[in-house]
Amino acid sequence: MNETDFIAALRRLPLHAGARGLEDDAAVLEIGGETLVLTHDTMVEGVHFLSTQDMADVAWKLVATNLSDLAAMGASPVGVLLSHTLGDGDEAFLAGLDDVLTHYGVGILGGDTVRGNGMRTLGLTAIGRATHTPVPSRAGAQVGHGLYVTGTLGEAMLGFEAMRDGTEADPAAYTRPLARVAEGEALAPHVSAMMDVSDGLLLDAFRLAEASALSIAIDMSACPVAEPERMMECLTWGDDYELLFTLPEGTKPPVQATRIGTVEPRGFAPLFVDGEPVTNREGLGYTHEQAAPPPSG
Amino acid sequence: MNETDFIAALRRLPLHAGARGLEDDAAVLEIGGETLVLTHDTMVEGVHFLSTQDMADVAWKLVATNLSDLAAMGASPVGVLLSHTLGDGDEAFLAGLDDVLTHYGVGILGGDTVRGNGMRTLGLTAIGRATHTPVPSRAGAQVGHGLYVTGTLGEAMLGFEAMRDGTEADPAAYTRPLARVAEGEALAPHVSAMMDVSDGLLLDAFRLAEASALSIAIDMSACPVAEPERMMECLTWGDDYELLFTLPEGTKPPVQATRIGTVEPRGFAPLFVDGEPVTNREGLGYTHEQAAPPPSG
Repeated sequence: MNETDFIAALRRLPLHAGARGLEDDAAVLEIGGETLVLTHDTMVEGVHFLSTQDMADVAWKLVATNLSDLAAMGASPVGVLLSHTLGDGDEAFLAGLDDVLTHYGVGILGGDTVRGNGMRTLGLTAIGRATHTPVPSRAGAQVGHGLYVTGTLGEAMLGFEAMRDGTEADPAAYTRPLARVAEGEALAPHVSAMMDVSDGLLLDAFRLAEASALSIAIDMSACPVAEPERMMECLTWGDDYELLFTLPEGTKPPVQATRIGTVEPRGFAPLFVDGEPVTNREGLGYTHEQAAPPPSG
Repeated sequence: MNETDFIAALRRLPLHAGARGLEDDAAVLEIGGETLVLTHDTMVEGVHFLSTQDMADVAWKLVATNLSDLAAMGASPVGVLLSHTLGDGDEAFLAGLDDVLTHYGVGILGGDTVRGNGMRTLGLTAIGRATHTPVPSRAGAQVGHGLYVTGTLGEAMLGFEAMRDGTEADPAAYTRPLARVAEGEALAPHVSAMMDVSDGLLLDAFRLAEASALSIAIDMSACPVAEPERMMECLTWGDDYELLFTLPEGTKPPVQATRIGTVEPRGFAPLFVDGEPVTNREGLGYTHEQAAPPPSG
């Protein structure tokens, strides 16, 4: 089975109401007068990270990508559970884990450590506390609202190339991405919909439109990209961990962000890029059916 | 690094207070007016399950072992997050997952589905609600208290052998273990210490003694085992998912259980078996430094 089919099948199993139909970046659990937000991301050696990568960076990214999912829900990180496969670079992994936990002020709650059998799989469950209810979702976009994105798209791609080619450019945008935790909390009370841009802006915008059952029109020339002559790559490569959100017309974003489009009534396609309809997800961004990133040179 | 060294190093990183020093079966998170219990177990193909095993059974065991950790804390299951690596037998995996979630009345909250790269790794985070506070721990045993265990030890071993050898004996104790969720809830208000027996009775009793900084004396002839002529194997093979707990002298267990020993002041060793001191863990049970179970014939 591929990822899409498997998730579709999961949706037919008993789901907790807080799963939000497995459509959002994280689950929402109301408990004891509070609202918790829970997410889990898994990274496979040779698929999501390279065997030659510094394991300190891999640890950083494992935590940061999960905190990005919490950020997309406006949640403040509480703690993490680590699923660790033992292997080369464990000391470096621990050092990187220390860095990222200290950076975000988050503590380890638990997890499991196992002996591996070939390529390693690393997992992290992150738990956060909602700072605003209702917790933002991908499904709340409304006609006429503006579409915004934080930061600059394509920087992770350039960072990956710097790492791969050993150039002098800084690979940090790829190796040590930052989760927009503070921005997510500031945005949560204002947005009609929010998600993080993990798999490429166009694919994630397509998903937001689908979840909201509306269309999104993106003005490509407005998109903040790291290398304008490689616009399409910047909008599809992914791994940027910026926040994509919608705001009512006239509402100014409380954080630095760029308006890149508008929510429209559901038209012929969920996504329009410079007026051209995009009817399917193919080529829009990173999916698990794609090949792994090329091995480091 | 081996598992012990890695976990020792993790303890020097930022820990959440609810991690209980990574000594217990699960973490404890006080939130609002409730107490949550969180645990994560990981299963690696060729290490924790065989490539030839029915993936429906693997799904069952992945959930049941996590619920067993919740049971050890007297927690009632709330939901799970699944980390799934795609591969052969996904349809069977989903069917087994449906079975076990339905059996325990638990829903999926979220997770991640990834493309694998060789042997698969499956993970599950289970979240429960404490039914009694303070939540039982391994560290609460007190001198003079009785040591008890539920069920019969060694049944998982016999189940594994039935599966491996294709005999007519029922392999379910190994392939579809039951988590003692109801028993854990009934016991929680009464026990001074509790844990589940996942890695073998003797190893887990050793750990309980160490966590409580006391000694435990076990009367081997009192231990309920599936095959008395293989007593030592039954007490060390593991995978039984029974509950091991201590009760004040004179307190009758509210569930069916067998008294197998007594908590004593810390003596020469943490564990005494029929009066013989056991000073180190070697040979007491399953650890990740051991080889995988033998491949199916």
